[in-house]
Amino acid sequence: MNALEELAESFSRLPGIGKKSATRIAISLLKADNVFLHTFAQQLATLQDKIKPCSICGAYTEADPCGICTNSTRDQSVICVVEQPQDVQTIEASREYHGLFHVLGGVISPLDGVGPDDLSIRKLLERVHKGTVSEVIIATNPTIEGDTTALYLQRILAATGVKVTRLASGLPVGGDLEYADKLTLARSFRGRTPL
Amino acid sequence: MNALEELAESFSRLPGIGKKSATRIAISLLKADNVFLHTFAQQLATLQDKIKPCSICGAYTEADPCGICTNSTRDQSVICVVEQPQDVQTIEASREYHGLFHVLGGVISPLDGVGPDDLSIRKLLERVHKGTVSEVIIATNPTIEGDTTALYLQRILAATGVKVTRLASGLPVGGDLEYADKLTLARSFRGRTPL
Repeated sequence: MNALEELAESFSRLPGIGKKSATRIAISLLKADNVFLHTFAQQLATLQDKIKPCSICGAYTEADPCGICTNSTRDQSVICVVEQPQDVQTIEASREYHGLFHVLGGVISPLDGVGPDDLSIRKLLERVHKGTVSEVIIATNPTIEGDTTALYLQRILAATGVKVTRLASGLPVGGDLEYADKLTLARSFRGRTPL
Repeated sequence: MNALEELAESFSRLPGIGKKSATRIAISLLKADNVFLHTFAQQLATLQDKIKPCSICGAYTEADPCGICTNSTRDQSVICVVEQPQDVQTIEASREYHGLFHVLGGVISPLDGVGPDDLSIRKLLERVHKGTVSEVIIATNPTIEGDTTALYLQRILAATGVKVTRLASGLPVGGDLEYADKLTLARSFRGRTPL
């Protein structure tokens, strides 16, 4: 295997890249800007040293605590609970939410052997117990596991007196009734809002 | 932009990788084996220093001349002419051909401003003139430009007395008449072979 094939082999190990795409990418890099190639290599080599989970919320960050946890202009009274660190970026991109985050690191899933103790739930309770939080928005995915986890958190948090809410689930904006699946349609009925 | 977003941005510059895939790949690398990540980075950084075109045939190689040109067990009497260096790998993978190669570096394409002088044709003539070659197989793509280039090469090579052939074009193996386009079907009639 020569250097070109070795690089293609590495690319094919990445998610969503097959053997043909990997070869095509490797060949394209032969003619790429040499400065870009070295920057790219540097970014790969230093990634894991630079990016760590925030010790407060668990989001991916270069500085610890992260820029969201340390930003005093954000609403300190709301915590949005998400499954994965990347969910923080997705929600930030919507520019709809201005509170704090908490990353669970997964969902309760007995089939996969994941119980409440495997998630960052104790840390969440500690943050809520500090008293500045008035609402916890549960933004786990609208799946069986995500719903189970939401219910579990709701029960655990009930004792703290904090308001617990769940992201609305229903028809996607721009969607069509005709293409909505039964479960989504049923949920959009149950969650209907007054006009 | 933090290190994770910078890496995703670099991935999104590669062919066939969109913004979402790039982010997904970057996140997956956060949890990847650190040794793999450093090897991958090293491969990227050294690629352009290691891989060069062979000074005889033009194929990508680490050693110059390449392993095919220097392999005395290969049939030195046949040269297969291809458009791009990566075509050599594609043909090698078929294990059907055991002669030498010659990379043109493109095809004649007046619309793109590419004429015969922009291709490695003089070098091909020099190789043929050396006298050990008895056949030149033209394996340019079965496109208008590839066919034009094949015709041009045939005329140029006619004077040398060498046998000039072209890869067969027709129905792909495992294909279905119903799905064959008109041009391919027409060509498979013209190129029909006795049973």
